[in-house]
Order: sequence, then structure tokens, then C-alpha cells
Amino acid sequence: MTDAIETLLSPASVALVGASDNPARIGGRPLRYLRDGGFKGGVYPINPKRDTVQGMKSYAALADLPEAPDTAILAVPASATLRAVEDCAARGVRSAIVFSAGFAETGAEGAAQQKRMTGLAKEAGLRLLGPNCLGVFNPAKGYYGTFSVILDEQFIMPGPVGIVSQSGAYGAHLAHLARKRGLGVSHWITTGNEADIDVAEALHWMVRQDETRVVMAYAEGVQDRDVFIKALETARDNGKAVVFMKTGRSTVGAEAAASHTAALAGSDEVFDAVLRQYGVHRAATTAEQIDIAYACAAGRYPAGNRIGIFTLSGGFGIQLADDSAAAGLDVSPMPREAQEKLLALLPYASPRNPVDATAQAATDMNLITSSVEAMVTMGGYDVFTAILGAGPASPTFAEPLRSAIMQGVAASPHSIRSVTMSAPEDVVRSYEAEGFLVYEDGSALASSLGALVRFSDSFARKDKEAPPAPMSPVPLPDSGAMSEVTAKVILTEAGLSFPAERLASTPDEAVKAAEQIGYPVVLKICSPDIAHKTEISGVAVNLRDAQTVRDNAEAILARAAEMRPNARVEGLIVAPMLGDGVETIVGVAQDSVLGPVVMFGLGGIFVEVLKDVTFRAAPFGLEEARRMIREIKGFPLLEGVRGAGRSDIEALAQLLSDLSRFAYAHRDQIDSIDLNPVRVMPEGQGAVALDALIVRKEECEQ
Amino acid sequence: MTDAIETLLSPASVALVGASDNPARIGGRPLRYLRDGGFKGGVYPINPKRDTVQGMKSYAALADLPEAPDTAILAVPASATLRAVEDCAARGVRSAIVFSAGFAETGAEGAAQQKRMTGLAKEAGLRLLGPNCLGVFNPAKGYYGTFSVILDEQFIMPGPVGIVSQSGAYGAHLAHLARKRGLGVSHWITTGNEADIDVAEALHWMVRQDETRVVMAYAEGVQDRDVFIKALETARDNGKAVVFMKTGRSTVGAEAAASHTAALAGSDEVFDAVLRQYGVHRAATTAEQIDIAYACAAGRYPAGNRIGIFTLSGGFGIQLADDSAAAGLDVSPMPREAQEKLLALLPYASPRNPVDATAQAATDMNLITSSVEAMVTMGGYDVFTAILGAGPASPTFAEPLRSAIMQGVAASPHSIRSVTMSAPEDVVRSYEAEGFLVYEDGSALASSLGALVRFSDSFARKDKEAPPAPMSPVPLPDSGAMSEVTAKVILTEAGLSFPAERLASTPDEAVKAAEQIGYPVVLKICSPDIAHKTEISGVAVNLRDAQTVRDNAEAILARAAEMRPNARVEGLIVAPMLGDGVETIVGVAQDSVLGPVVMFGLGGIFVEVLKDVTFRAAPFGLEEARRMIREIKGFPLLEGVRGAGRSDIEALAQLLSDLSRFAYAHRDQIDSIDLNPVRVMPEGQGAVALDALIVRKEECEQ
Repeated sequence: MTDAIETLLSPASVALVGASDNPARIGGRPLRYLRDGGFKGGVYPINPKRDTVQGMKSYAALADLPEAPDTAILAVPASATLRAVEDCAARGVRSAIVFSAGFAETGAEGAAQQKRMTGLAKEAGLRLLGPNCLGVFNPAKGYYGTFSVILDEQFIMPGPVGIVSQSGAYGAHLAHLARKRGLGVSHWITTGNEADIDVAEALHWMVRQDETRVVMAYAEGVQDRDVFIKALETARDNGKAVVFMKTGRSTVGAEAAASHTAALAGSDEVFDAVLRQYGVHRAATTAEQIDIAYACAAGRYPAGNRIGIFTLSGGFGIQLADDSAAAGLDVSPMPREAQEKLLALLPYASPRNPVDATAQAATDMNLITSSVEAMVTMGGYDVFTAILGAGPASPTFAEPLRSAIMQGVAASPHSIRSVTMSAPEDVVRSYEAEGFLVYEDGSALASSLGALVRFSDSFARKDKEAPPAPMSPVPLPDSGAMSEVTAKVILTEAGLSFPAERLASTPDEAVKAAEQIGYPVVLKICSPDIAHKTEISGVAVNLRDAQTVRDNAEAILARAAEMRPNARVEGLIVAPMLGDGVETIVGVAQDSVLGPVVMFGLGGIFVEVLKDVTFRAAPFGLEEARRMIREIKGFPLLEGVRGAGRSDIEALAQLLSDLSRFAYAHRDQIDSIDLNPVRVMPEGQGAVALDALIVRKEECEQ
Repeated sequence: MTDAIETLLSPASVALVGASDNPARIGGRPLRYLRDGGFKGGVYPINPKRDTVQGMKSYAALADLPEAPDTAILAVPASATLRAVEDCAARGVRSAIVFSAGFAETGAEGAAQQKRMTGLAKEAGLRLLGPNCLGVFNPAKGYYGTFSVILDEQFIMPGPVGIVSQSGAYGAHLAHLARKRGLGVSHWITTGNEADIDVAEALHWMVRQDETRVVMAYAEGVQDRDVFIKALETARDNGKAVVFMKTGRSTVGAEAAASHTAALAGSDEVFDAVLRQYGVHRAATTAEQIDIAYACAAGRYPAGNRIGIFTLSGGFGIQLADDSAAAGLDVSPMPREAQEKLLALLPYASPRNPVDATAQAATDMNLITSSVEAMVTMGGYDVFTAILGAGPASPTFAEPLRSAIMQGVAASPHSIRSVTMSAPEDVVRSYEAEGFLVYEDGSALASSLGALVRFSDSFARKDKEAPPAPMSPVPLPDSGAMSEVTAKVILTEAGLSFPAERLASTPDEAVKAAEQIGYPVVLKICSPDIAHKTEISGVAVNLRDAQTVRDNAEAILARAAEMRPNARVEGLIVAPMLGDGVETIVGVAQDSVLGPVVMFGLGGIFVEVLKDVTFRAAPFGLEEARRMIREIKGFPLLEGVRGAGRSDIEALAQLLSDLSRFAYAHRDQIDSIDLNPVRVMPEGQGAVALDALIVRKEECEQ
């Protein structure tokens, strides 16, 4: 069976239910676009009140059509939509686009209506796009199943950029901006209320299309975690760049998102981290989204991050050097020999990098050619960039300058070429024709190049990093809360390390255990019913002799009996007192959208004051765990500061990866895990969780 | 005497030395621009080889002119420039622009040449702009003293935007971008090598011009600290916005800046903080610089930060809500009554804020008018914004939409109006004509509006905050290093607090002092020759009885005698052991560019790992000190976290302000001050410096 989305984007034939004779109306625009856009398939307008619409034969009902169309566009009001969906189902239509608003976004009644419609379609095997969406288009086929006004004046050029957007208006805006930037579009899908097909599924389809090199995506949230992760993995594995605009960063934005659609927003920090995990670029602004998609549209990625900057003005060079450094690019100096060659040509030049040929070179274009040639042949740069400012806007200067630069870069066809300038469109296109990425703003160029480097790194992981091995689930106790000891036994089977502890039933046993472990020790109440031990003062630390252990053991047991008379007390945990290491916290949570995620941060004020934590979707491998660890601001503490040595970062990475595999294997049973603290010992000595709490799903649903 | 810069920008007459008959050459362009630009003053081409240039009478030498011109443009090579400057001096010219490169930026020889030229000019009272600059222009007078190619096709419109740039190419680029954005320019000054006039002086002049509302500035560093600070103060007091591009953020950028001009870069962090201190917006990108200048060019600033967002698409609304929150704007909800009114109009609308009238409103323009009217009359917003996306690019939709919105906003002419859309220039201008700020990108709009709010706050400080009172210098010891006790005595006179300490000469005296202070105590070696006490283990803390004090006192004195036999030991400081409070560090340093600055940060890992410190130029008042304190990431620690109470932030602010006044009063004598740590006690209990080190200028120059 052809993919359902295939029928939406490349139908052999399409019916337009609610076709209007007025080409300005919602039911009229798609017909006009289908006719004028050059679509070669069958088009069946449905309008019971007319014989023709816009000069085409019209049918009274879907049932009257000579064939079952692949897809149908439903341009009828909400009240008539259910009936139209029933008709599609009856006629054997494969997919349908529902334009109308007035469903789940309007409240309970609309939501019920939407649910009925979805149920009906599902039963019939009819896939739905929308409702409350702007439809789709596929410029290469001249297929425009949309009523967007952006096509009023001009259609969209086919090309390598896919667009998938929950918001129709935003998707249309992106297509419009892409067109202004000279970018062609492969497919355009807007998902609206996502009663059936969501952004994740559309994205997953798009990153499997040969003609698509980069996808601009927009979502307020996602519906299906597994499909979403699969889409991101597929994109990475296929070398397709995804540039994502996810809204709801701010509280007020998240509130607006919640009131706008039915999509769950989840935690923005988690979404952010997961996009990073899969090498997706999250755009902060629309301008950035277009800028980066533009860079990716060429489908060429740099082998490394070394950038050579050519300028005729020191000031510009410094600025781009700053921007490049901020974008993670390496503004490495020209080799000595190359610098000497440049100085021989141009005694006043700065030959290092940025190479500043000074305004003098503008009076002798050969100097520009020679400088650029020296840079691209001798510099060893992955990316070459020239800063031309407003120069190419000057009619007298533009052509000699262009010609001088093209002669220079011709010596090395391999590195990525880029330029910043403010120039008329024809000048811009003439540089693009020679393989140049052209930007007006240097900061936008630098951050786009930085994104290319990160995409390149991420695509390369497929061959370098093994995916995390699946973990067999560890049998959990039948039901109910788990004590610290139980949690530790389970997690030990998952490969995690804990201190050499003993469980003592009585104060006497506690003293015996302490003698065996060696002083000082820690005592902790152990009960599945006392998750937060400090609430009953159930922990005593740094106990240095037998008498103190006995006194404290008695006191803790007495307090537990008094304050939690119904708690099942398993005994007292006697543990060695570990003073060394760096305190971190590790946890597992279920994000409402992205499912099981692992959280990592430094303990104490770092997490409490600075919120210095990061996340990853489970499961993930060692390399990803290492990246995760390096991401927190306090990372230097683990590398060793103030004379302290390096901590056992490898053991910590192993712990995080193992925990993520465990969390994924038990995603249906376990709601959260807290390991707080995890003490990361000096290098070679491991990472040890001092406490462990596992909360089942059923517990938190109570 | 007229200001020298006045003669550069508005001369009654100008001589062009090195005038060329070829209007494309450096000596020809200015003549062409002066003729075609409509300059009404006298123009005297100087060219000994010709009788006329470009059809104008030419003179052989400055000496031959019928009058002394106000200013001269020197378009001759470096080798001929010195002579030309001599001629200007002899003829009584008031100011001169030196275009030629080949001076200080090329090395020692060029620097010497530049110095000779400057000395000569100074002697004659001749002010210089450049060398290695692109000159000036003043569009209102049609005066273009530049050879920039950006004027080839089109001159610059007069208007409210001043541009001052060290880099000629960057300044030209800004002028070009301003023109593209429809912004007029009041004055344009490029300073190049800044042999005489620098960006600071040019800026100081510009912010005193009535026709200038906002200045875009570019610098790699500044030459004259006092003029620079004066310029920033004047800008703030006159309500002129300054949007600053300062390069050299990154190490490689700073290196490139150093090799590019003679400007000292100073510390980028200090520069950044000082711009913030004076309410200057530091732009991170050129696009941002233009965007914010555009917002300021209207000269209208919002009274507060409440923004009302009108949209036809939920997705856009969420995005702008996110961007607004990030920019410090308050997306406060519509009053209840107004929400009900909107819902009555449009049952599917989201009436809160963003107000989403949904695409349905596009089919009934009256709904748009009513919604907008309700927002501007009932919302209480300081700024109104409408998100129109690509709608206004549609020829059928643009005019009805515009008209509907204009009718809506007409009900309230007072709030700031803004809109985001992607539309042809004429549509953009039609909105601007109605007082709208028009942006293509919502993020750019939001951050520009955020900048307007901050400018507004900063301008208002003039009336609300008294400037810091000057402090009379405290007499310092005649010369030489100062011990901790001496430093504390001096700083006590400046108003700072220290613990009740005693100086003991012998172990016996130390014990006596400890008994009087009460245990536990701290012992510290006191010597002007031992700045870093821990190097000789010269500190002992938490001493709890007489014997321990005696033992430690003996040991410290013995170590000092052994390890620093030549040190003048004043004795042992006996201080109470203060356990409470939050540990901070405070210091004074001399920035190589911006002079005496006060540094503040949290102690320990905050400063060591996170570099969580901030700066202010001295002197500053209490309000500025409060803002400084709130700026650090760890500020919540001072407000109280983990059950701890609020620290004495007021006392800390007083300490910082007092120290800044002291540092400014002694800026010629003192190089640095370290107060590490300063313990900020619980509210009402003060901020106490536990240690103090003052380093004189002569000490560090040794």
C-alpha cells in the first residue's frame, strides 16, 4: 500500500468537496491553484448546486464520480464535514484534507465532533489531515491542495526544502519567505488540529523523500512520541537536516499554546534537549530558521569547522571572527608560508585570518584574486568566506569584484564557499550560481555555518556510534512501593553501582554492620512506605563509633514507629560515609510528550539556584552520555578545579547510559527514578549513587 | 569657537586636496558627490597639474585660495599627507579629513609618521579626522566629504539616525542598510586610525545635535575614557538612544582588532557592563543594530512594558508571546470585561492575549477592526502589535486588511503601534505613515520593543537618581606597599565596614585580643610585604582556645621570619570568626580602556567555575549598585534559598557604591583593590569585608 501521505501529496486524482465558482473563496482557491499550477492528475469539483465551477464539470456528490479519487479536499463548514468524511469513506477515498476550523480548538463540543470524525475515518481506513489546517502542496507536481493566499500572485518553485507546520499561517509564511530567498520547496504540509496525521508523521515521511534535503518544521508540541523520535532518527540517518521552530518557551507562550490547540506542551527544556540529542537545529527566530535551511538546501556540509575569512575591511573581519567563534567555528591562522606569500603581495595586509587585503586591494583586483587563491589553496579551510559589505551594490564595482573573487576560488572547488554582502538580487544569484552561500548579515552567516558543522557531526554519528543495546527488563516486585534497598537491588542488576551497604534489622545488627564496614557510617531508615526519609529525620550521617550508631539506630526506629505507624519498616541501611567526589543528581522522568527522559545535573546550589540540569530521551549510548555531561555549565567541576583532580566522567557516562536503557525497558511500569546524590569519585574510582528511589506508574496515578 | 566637528560636518567652505578629474577615483568621488549632492558652500579643488577638475576651477595650492576654507579633505597618498597637513596649518584651516591608509595600522614606521602629523596639527590648532578613514557626510546640507562607493547610485536621505564608526567600511554598510530600511541619516562620521578625533568625541558631539534621535556606533575600542563616559552620560541625559556595535568579543576577534588598529581593546566584559550601566544597547549583530535604531528613529518610547498582541493565527501569537517574554515585555491578559466583549464578537477567538481572532476574521474585516479597537481602548497596553504574516503580500487582501487595522487603532492614538509582516515596500511605508513600526521578523520586533522599554527606563533615571556624590580623597601613606591593617584603616574612612579586629605584636597579645573578641577567632599575618598570606600559611582559622591561638601565633610568626626574612611584619591580626552570611568578592581594577571599574561576584565556585561576575565604571550611586548586584546569575543566593533568609543587599550596595567613589577619587594613585571575601550578613546586619588589599599604581609599574 502506498503511504497515506503519498496520496495526500501526489494523488493521481483529487476531489474538491465544496468547490466554489468564486476563485477567491476557500472552496474556490484550491481549484484555481490546481488548474493554474499545472497539476496533471484528475480534478473532480463537487458542488450539488452547479453543473460547472470555474469552467470545470462539477459533480453533485462523491458517489457520482467515475472513479474513487486518491484524495479529497473538504472545503465545507464544520457542520457539514462529518457528512463529507462519511461520503469519502463510502467512496473508498484514501485520504482527506479538512480545512474547516470549529473543532477541538473551540472547546468540549468541538472536540467531541472531532473525535467522532476521526473514529469514523479510522474505521474506514481513511487518513485525515487537519481539521483547521491549510492543506498541502507539492510544487514539482504542480499540486496545490490549499487555500493559502500566498499563492495569489505566484506559485512556489520546486526545490530541496520541505516544510511541515502545525500552524497553517506559519507554514504559509515560511513558504513565502523561502520563495523570497530563492529557495525551492519539495513538499509543504500543514497539520492543524492533528486529529490523525501529526507533525511527527509528516516529518517522518518527508525525511524519507529523495528530493528533500532539509525540512523546516513548526510545532507547539507533538502527539506521538515514538513516531517523533523515529522521524528524528531517520532524518539523522538519512543525512537530512531538520530546522525546528518549537513554540511555548515562555510561560505565557505555553499557556497560549495550550489554549490554541489540543497538543500537550510537555517541558520545553526536555524538548530542547531531545532536539539537540538527535542533531536537530532548534531555531530561535524565523529569520534563523530560513537562514539555516538556506545553508542546508545546497546539501553540502563542511568536513570540519575551520573557516577562512577574506575581507577588504578590518572592522568587518573582526566582527565575523567574533561571530564565527561564537558559532563554534575555528578561525585558525593561515600557515606561515601562506602568510609570507600574502605579505609579499600586499605589504599592508593582515595575512593571519581574517585576511584583510585592505581597501587598497579594491584598486587592483588582481590582488583580490591572488589573496583568495592563496587562502583556498594553502589555508586548509573547510569553509571560505568573503565579506563584501555594500560593495556589490555599486554598479561600477560589482562585476570586477565578482570576477576577481571567482577567479580566486576556482583554484579549489572543494571547500564550502560563502559571502556576505548587501546587493541586488541578480548579483546575489550570480554568486549562488558559483556555489556561494550568500548572506546579508555576517552573524547570520556564521551561525548558519556553525549549524552546518553540527549537522555534519551529527550525520557522521551513524557510522561512528553504536546505538544503545536494548536491555532486558529486570523483574520488578509484583506491585506496590519499593524501598531504597529494593530499588538498589533492581538497579544493580541494570549495572549501576552503589556503596557496599548492609541492611540491619536491629540496633545490634546495625552496630555489627558498622564494625564490618568501618567507621564513619551513615544510617538510613529503609521502608517502601517512607519515600522521603528526612521528613521523619530518618537519616544520621558521620557516625564514628558503636555507641553513636546504637543510639541513632534506636532513635530512628522509634521515630519511624511513632510518626509512620503503618509503614512496613525493612530495617536500617548501614552505609559507609563517602566524603570524596563531586555531588551530582541523576533522575528519570516521564515527559508528558517525549516519554522517558534522563535528567542530569550537579547537586546543591547548581541545581537549586542555577537550574543547571540537562535531559536526554531514553535510551542513549555512551557517546551521547558524554555529550550530555559536557553540556552543563558546572562541567569544569567534574574536570577538576581548585587543585582537585578529574572525576570519573567515564563511570558517570556509563551510569547515565545504563539508567537510560533501564528506563526505556521499563517505560510502561516506572514513572520516575531519583538517584540523589550520585557521587562521582576521582578518576578510575567510579560513580556511586548514595540513594535510590523508584516510583511506579501506578503509584503516581493513585 | 565653533566646535571642530561642526566645521567637519557643516563647513562654510571646503578644499579638496588631491582633487581628481576622474569621478571614479578617491580624489574624484568627493568632488562629484559635493557637486551632485547639492552642497551650497564653497568648494575648492586643489590640483597643481590642472586648471579645472570635473569642470570646476582648480587651484595649485591651499595658499592660492581666496579664503581659508573651514575644512580640507586630503585625498593624497600617505607620503604626501604630512605636507598637506602643514599647508592646512599654514592656511589656517580649522579641520581636515585624512583618507590615506599607510599610517599606524602598518607598523612602527607608519605610527611614527602618524605621530608627527598629529603633533604638527595640534600645534596649529588643526583638528584631524583619520587617517585611514572614509570621511563624513551630512545629508541635510548635501555635504558628502567621503569617497564611499555607496553613494554611487543614490545619496542618503536626511533623518534622525546618526552614524559614527571607527571602520569606514562598516559605517558605509550601516548607511546603506539604513537607506534600504527607509531611515534617514543626520550625520555620518568615520574615524579610522583616530590620530586625533575618536569615536568617543564624535559620539559626544552627535548626541548633542537636535536632529539626531539615535546613534549607531561602531568601535573596536575607545581612546579617551573620560570623553567616552561623558558621551554616554550626555546621550542618556538628552534622551538619545545609542546602539553600539563593539567588536573583539572573542579572543581571535580581539587579536584581529589589536592587529587592525592602535585602539586598545580592554576587557570586553567591562565594556559590555559599562554600556549597560549607561543604558546603551550593545547590538550582537548588524541586523539587530539596524532593527533597534529603526525603532528608536521614531523618537517615541513606551511608558511601560505591557504589550498587546493581535493575531489571525494562534501559531504566530504563541511565537510572539515567547519572543516578548524573552525581551522582557509583559504579555498581560486583557481585562475580563474586554475578553467578554471579544468573545461576544468572535466565539472562536482566544481573547486573552495574544488575541487570536482566527482566520475567520479575515473573511469579515469588521471583526478585525472591532478586535483591535477593543485591545487599544480597553487593554491598557503600552505597545500594540499586529501579526499579519504574508497576508499583506497578497494584492487582494492587503488593502482591506490595512484599512480594517487603521480603523481599529484610530481609537487610541497614544500607544506605540507595531506590526510584523512580509510585504512590498509600498505597503510597509503605508503602515509607517500611520505611525507603525514595521518588522518582517517577530523576534526582531520583540527585541527592539524590549530595547525601547530599556531606553525609556534609562532616560528616566536622570530625574529619579542622584549622581554619586564625589568623595574627598583619603590621605594615603607616602609611598610603598600597604598592609591589610593600613588598607582597612583607609577604607574605613571611605565608609566600608570590617570586623572588630585587633593587631597583636606577640603571641601573648594575640591571646589577650582573642579573649576580648571571644572565641573562635582567626589569626592573620599583617605585613605590607606579604600581599598573599596563604603563600606562607599566614592564616589560621577557627581557633577555639588560648593555647591554640598561642601555638598558631608562634608558628605563623616563625614561618614569616623564615620565609620572608626581609618583610616588615606589623604583627598578627586577630579577628572574630564569622560563619554567617553569603561569601562574595568585590574588587577594583583599572581597565586599560575604561579606567577604574568595580567588580562584584559571588565567591567560591561561582567566580571560579562560572565566572559569575559583573562590572561597573566608577563612580556610581546606590541604584546602580543595586542593579549591579541583581545582574549576577547567583543573585537568588543573596535573596535567600534553601530556607536561608535574605542577605543584607542594601549594605552590600552601599559598600559597592562607596568603594566606587573611593576608587574614582584615587584613580591616579590606586591600581587595584581586593576585598575577598566580603561576607554579606543576614538583612540588617551589614556587609563585612574580611580581607583588604590595596595595590598602588607605582607598585605594579615596578
